[in-house]
Amino acid sequence: MNQDYIKADNWSIIEEGFDKERVKSSESLFSIGNGAMGQRANFEEHYSGETFQGSYIGGVYYPDKTRVGWWKNGYPEYFAKVLNAPNWIGIKVSVNGEALDLNTCKSVSNFKRELNMKEGWYQRSFQAETYNNIQLEVKVTRFLSLDLDEVGAIKYEITPLEDAVEILFEPYLDSGITNEDSNWDDKFWNTTDVAYEGNQAFIQAHTMKTNFATCTFMQSQLHLNGKPIEQKPIETKKELSISHGYSQEVKKGETLELHKFGGYVVDTNHKKEDLVAAAKNVLQKATDLGFEALLEKQKEAWNDIWEMSDISIEGDVKAQQAIRFNIFQLNQTYSGKDSRLNIGPKGFTGEKYGGSTYWDTEAYCIPFYMATKDQIVARNLLEYRYNHLEKAIENAEKLGFSNGAALYPMVTMNGEECHNEWEITFEEIHRNGAIAFAIYNYYRFTGDYSYIPEMGLEVLIGIARFWQQRATFSKQKEKYVILGVTGPNEYENNVNNNWYTNYLAKWCINYAVEQLQKVKDGYPEDYDRIIGVSKLTDSETSKWKKVAANMYFPFSEEEDVFLQQDGFLDKELITVEDLPNSQRPINQKWSWDRILRSPYIKQADVLQGFYLFEDHFTTEELQKHFDFYEPFTVHESSLSPCVHSIQAAKLDRMQQAYTFYLRTSRLDLDDYNKEVEEGLHITSMAGTWMSIVEGFGGMRVLDDKLSFTPRIPKQWKAYSFKINFRKRVLKVTVSNEGSKFELEGGKEDMSIRVNGERVVLEPAKVISI
Amino acid sequence: MNQDYIKADNWSIIEEGFDKERVKSSESLFSIGNGAMGQRANFEEHYSGETFQGSYIGGVYYPDKTRVGWWKNGYPEYFAKVLNAPNWIGIKVSVNGEALDLNTCKSVSNFKRELNMKEGWYQRSFQAETYNNIQLEVKVTRFLSLDLDEVGAIKYEITPLEDAVEILFEPYLDSGITNEDSNWDDKFWNTTDVAYEGNQAFIQAHTMKTNFATCTFMQSQLHLNGKPIEQKPIETKKELSISHGYSQEVKKGETLELHKFGGYVVDTNHKKEDLVAAAKNVLQKATDLGFEALLEKQKEAWNDIWEMSDISIEGDVKAQQAIRFNIFQLNQTYSGKDSRLNIGPKGFTGEKYGGSTYWDTEAYCIPFYMATKDQIVARNLLEYRYNHLEKAIENAEKLGFSNGAALYPMVTMNGEECHNEWEITFEEIHRNGAIAFAIYNYYRFTGDYSYIPEMGLEVLIGIARFWQQRATFSKQKEKYVILGVTGPNEYENNVNNNWYTNYLAKWCINYAVEQLQKVKDGYPEDYDRIIGVSKLTDSETSKWKKVAANMYFPFSEEEDVFLQQDGFLDKELITVEDLPNSQRPINQKWSWDRILRSPYIKQADVLQGFYLFEDHFTTEELQKHFDFYEPFTVHESSLSPCVHSIQAAKLDRMQQAYTFYLRTSRLDLDDYNKEVEEGLHITSMAGTWMSIVEGFGGMRVLDDKLSFTPRIPKQWKAYSFKINFRKRVLKVTVSNEGSKFELEGGKEDMSIRVNGERVVLEPAKVISI
Repeated sequence: MNQDYIKADNWSIIEEGFDKERVKSSESLFSIGNGAMGQRANFEEHYSGETFQGSYIGGVYYPDKTRVGWWKNGYPEYFAKVLNAPNWIGIKVSVNGEALDLNTCKSVSNFKRELNMKEGWYQRSFQAETYNNIQLEVKVTRFLSLDLDEVGAIKYEITPLEDAVEILFEPYLDSGITNEDSNWDDKFWNTTDVAYEGNQAFIQAHTMKTNFATCTFMQSQLHLNGKPIEQKPIETKKELSISHGYSQEVKKGETLELHKFGGYVVDTNHKKEDLVAAAKNVLQKATDLGFEALLEKQKEAWNDIWEMSDISIEGDVKAQQAIRFNIFQLNQTYSGKDSRLNIGPKGFTGEKYGGSTYWDTEAYCIPFYMATKDQIVARNLLEYRYNHLEKAIENAEKLGFSNGAALYPMVTMNGEECHNEWEITFEEIHRNGAIAFAIYNYYRFTGDYSYIPEMGLEVLIGIARFWQQRATFSKQKEKYVILGVTGPNEYENNVNNNWYTNYLAKWCINYAVEQLQKVKDGYPEDYDRIIGVSKLTDSETSKWKKVAANMYFPFSEEEDVFLQQDGFLDKELITVEDLPNSQRPINQKWSWDRILRSPYIKQADVLQGFYLFEDHFTTEELQKHFDFYEPFTVHESSLSPCVHSIQAAKLDRMQQAYTFYLRTSRLDLDDYNKEVEEGLHITSMAGTWMSIVEGFGGMRVLDDKLSFTPRIPKQWKAYSFKINFRKRVLKVTVSNEGSKFELEGGKEDMSIRVNGERVVLEPAKVISI
Repeated sequence: MNQDYIKADNWSIIEEGFDKERVKSSESLFSIGNGAMGQRANFEEHYSGETFQGSYIGGVYYPDKTRVGWWKNGYPEYFAKVLNAPNWIGIKVSVNGEALDLNTCKSVSNFKRELNMKEGWYQRSFQAETYNNIQLEVKVTRFLSLDLDEVGAIKYEITPLEDAVEILFEPYLDSGITNEDSNWDDKFWNTTDVAYEGNQAFIQAHTMKTNFATCTFMQSQLHLNGKPIEQKPIETKKELSISHGYSQEVKKGETLELHKFGGYVVDTNHKKEDLVAAAKNVLQKATDLGFEALLEKQKEAWNDIWEMSDISIEGDVKAQQAIRFNIFQLNQTYSGKDSRLNIGPKGFTGEKYGGSTYWDTEAYCIPFYMATKDQIVARNLLEYRYNHLEKAIENAEKLGFSNGAALYPMVTMNGEECHNEWEITFEEIHRNGAIAFAIYNYYRFTGDYSYIPEMGLEVLIGIARFWQQRATFSKQKEKYVILGVTGPNEYENNVNNNWYTNYLAKWCINYAVEQLQKVKDGYPEDYDRIIGVSKLTDSETSKWKKVAANMYFPFSEEEDVFLQQDGFLDKELITVEDLPNSQRPINQKWSWDRILRSPYIKQADVLQGFYLFEDHFTTEELQKHFDFYEPFTVHESSLSPCVHSIQAAKLDRMQQAYTFYLRTSRLDLDDYNKEVEEGLHITSMAGTWMSIVEGFGGMRVLDDKLSFTPRIPKQWKAYSFKINFRKRVLKVTVSNEGSKFELEGGKEDMSIRVNGERVVLEPAKVISI
């Protein structure tokens, strides 16, 4: 870990003391979101120090240019980037004419940030002595409403500590914002109207090229000592910004408050010409309630979320804080309400990865949403890919495949590929397998087979076609090989026979063949429709089967392990233990070629396969592969420690499992990879959830039933979680004394397995084991 | 071949008939240059059709941004691009107020372009009927002076064919030019002054970032029926351009001529503050002579060049035209006068490859310049790399090497790496070997050992250090392996144990060790100095030797050939013959991943090694490897056919050698690779020269003596070339009857080998064999 300034607390993320060096890091950690929008914890008032400004709207992106150097055929037209959206949180604060700026204050004391996860709000408070020696106490509370998801609210309180002062609040909107990752000074927003009306203001702007039309809005209200003051604000309108000035003399000990409501309405949810009306409408709803009442609703909404998705841990505050932070962020990022949205790897906390959809969704996030939300949420996520099937087929065609073969994009906003590094875009094709696996996993968990005849089978056919065409026959090996790929371990590029990819390819084909038969037998009408559309013939499926049956898997007799790829043993096999700390993280210290020829593994690769297909291998095989690969693994992908934690738990290596748990769960809180400034690792947070539920809890679905092998790290007294399984909610509590299972609601019994033994649960009864 | 509109002619490149589709292609083919500057054959008058404007100044480049997508450690700061420089050739022509524009003329007849290579000028003539039905005859002659290499001259002649017309010539300068490859609308030039003085005009502009200051200048003079007319021009000055208007009534059959002189002076050759004075000075020299006299000098200068470097071919006009085109372009691109310059792969004919230096210089160009120029030219090219040694060491340090290991850049303008694709920049490391080989080759050919103790040995040490550090020991193979490289065949990336690279690495180390000993024995002072600087120890050289002695070379017992890289035989080995024509060139038709996993070879790779180290292998081995690899070779690199032509000739496959010869020599004239619009392939033109001299002529240097094994394609009656060998000039003529050798000048005899037999030549006597 690289930082430890976050205070341990069961329900809150807390920072104490002002340190300019930590501002960007905290801006990430204290981010707030409500599924529809989100923002970094930037200060409302002016700050002249180092900061990374970010406010993001779900689904609003920009197709940036991808060309540089030499074009390669098949490259996407653009690289989707998440856009920093117009700023609505800004409040310029002046005290006796002096702008409040923490960077220039003579002293800042009692500085505290709190992200209250239980209730869903963020607060910052401090005492400051300004450059002109004015002593102030400040407290700012902010949240993005879950109920009115186009609106956020800020309460900015100032109390003079010595003399009476004149305070000027200038809440503003600003569309003259930039992206951190913009290198070409491109403008991304086109502002078309800046307007005010009383204490409301509106900026209409649309994104360049994609033409997402938005109205950013605000409305403010002054309060003195808790009582509203009516004051006509002074407007200052510029080309790209607008502000309202409210000034007031405030005596020592009195508190002046500004309540500011703001946010975005977007033409994806409203008619373009109605945006201002929509903004007024949502402002009306918010201001009718007022700050406090809206905050009460926020607390209730979060209470409902926690009711189902909380994981409690006793006896280890840091672990408790961490898992709640992970669950909190996942819920801030994706609510499951809007099937056009998905889960960007950085959520609403930064620009990297462009806010787009990766294979993370299928491989890591679906299990979490499946078990903590109504199953429609997971089905929506599957449908998202079904809706993109045609584009996946087009994408495969661009790369030379034919006949309906589908290659899902590595990165996408709307189904089109929008990543532009050939070794990823063209070669990291295992992503296709994750999409098929998610279909299998969804059915395994929910028992809802209907998705497969309705939609899933077509996806499976496209994917099987891709794998059959992508494999080639090696005369030398007399096997099918898959050449030139990048596996989950992106520290290898353009390798041959990545074991994980080959294994997944074989599995995808076999699974598609099985489902074809199952749909033929059980859903003949769907089958006929699908055969009609896909023009699938027996001779084609024979070709598939031939590839699957004769797939090559690199294996070392000497080491008795599958090899991550051809030639892996030619590397200088120096373990991570012997790698000087000064060289790490290697992705910041080493050139790319050096990384590539090293044995170091960014994230689970062979072990990712052992995770997905656990039941295909014995525990002894798992152990052998874990012992071979983990020592070379640098875990520089956020998606790595969780898988290792689950596997270490399975191998009964609880100390190691616990270490990996801390690393995955506190990855951002403790900034293990020295990059938290850029934003949080949202998708891997679902992996943290898995490392408790699947790792320590040992939860699996076996033959349509939940199964558990509960273990507990020695650092903990107890932990508990709930699982929404096929419309029944099961609460599991594990302690040193044993485990308890409680079936909530319903009328029927439910049988599960615990440590391999059948256990029958009755509703509302606690069974201890 | 993809076009055949160029008329066959022994000394000229000729196009007849106006075809808008061919304009960009002809703009490349009719390019002119004088080593210091060059330009595409853009029309002087306005042309509203498709065109690719380009005028380039040697050594003037721009460091373009390289960032896009995700940064990788070790990437260069910039990608050097050659810049389209301010236009000085432009002459707006109006006839009775109507702008002459070939794109809008009612008819264009007798259109002809001629690039007279013997005399070094370019001419375009046509008859046109304008949109307003005016009939005109036009002839434009242009050249870039070899004598005054900052100046070019244009004679623009118009003759009205029916009625008297008012002709307005507006010669202009324009710095508002753009680059074709600019995607971000960046400005590359900053114009600081636009001025005129009488019939002269000047634009001062400097490149952004690199701050190359230039003055683009012009001076014009009107002539009627061959007689000068004094006329005060009308100036039109704009922000980025300036023009002079000269108008004159011209009767039917009379000819109005504009003589325009123009060009660039640059602060690399003059003081920045003296640029206008320098421009005036060179204009004075040019106008004192006048167009015709300057053209006479041009003819003499080219005559001198041809005297030494011509290759004549009898009985095959197309082959003759082609080799002269190649020799002509090489001489247009690099004169050897300025050791700061080098040979860009597109010379002055396009933007691609950024006008920078590649390994092409060492591997392809040095032999040509060595044998057709004074040996100082080749030594200058070697010194260019010696001067960059420190930067090569820095470059290697960036990639994690240490202790003075040197990695020369893949692409450079000033010694810094400026290419930004990791698979090339970081991995195409065989370039380092070409630089060592050139040192060996220079000494082998010239016998001038002095370069090695003076400069070369330090380069060799840096390169040997790199190879030793870059190789790793594979326990599995018990050999040193070189992982993660790109060989000369760029259709493979990040492969292990590219045979060519491994072979070259071993050779480089051994050669460095040998030269160390030789310098120690023969040049002890130099040796001490070098050991002092490099801090080389015996224990380090032992490490080198261990790597060289235990280098791994992939080999197939079954095929009895060295494998291009590990795993080559796993590919679907379908030969090019079975690849449908519609799929070619694969670099335009296929996605990158598909190319990478195919067996197709862009250019000689294993065979490149057999070419450089011919004497290490038997003819039978060459034949086996040629027969194995050539069928998979698509020759989509311009550097490929020449090597194959040389090897086919050696294998006595003269028909195949001839086919490859045509492909290399007429690559651009016949547009084999469908890309001549982008510019010409200059560096491969030296390969064409090699395919005659080394291929058909069988010239080698063996034990300090020239050796020949003359062959002649059946399509030819005879061919002859001259070789400047160790300050003696030898003329070789090969015909169906045998070969003749004539030693020019000198007093001493010279012994050579012909077909393995010793032959003693006496000065000025022709020996027939």
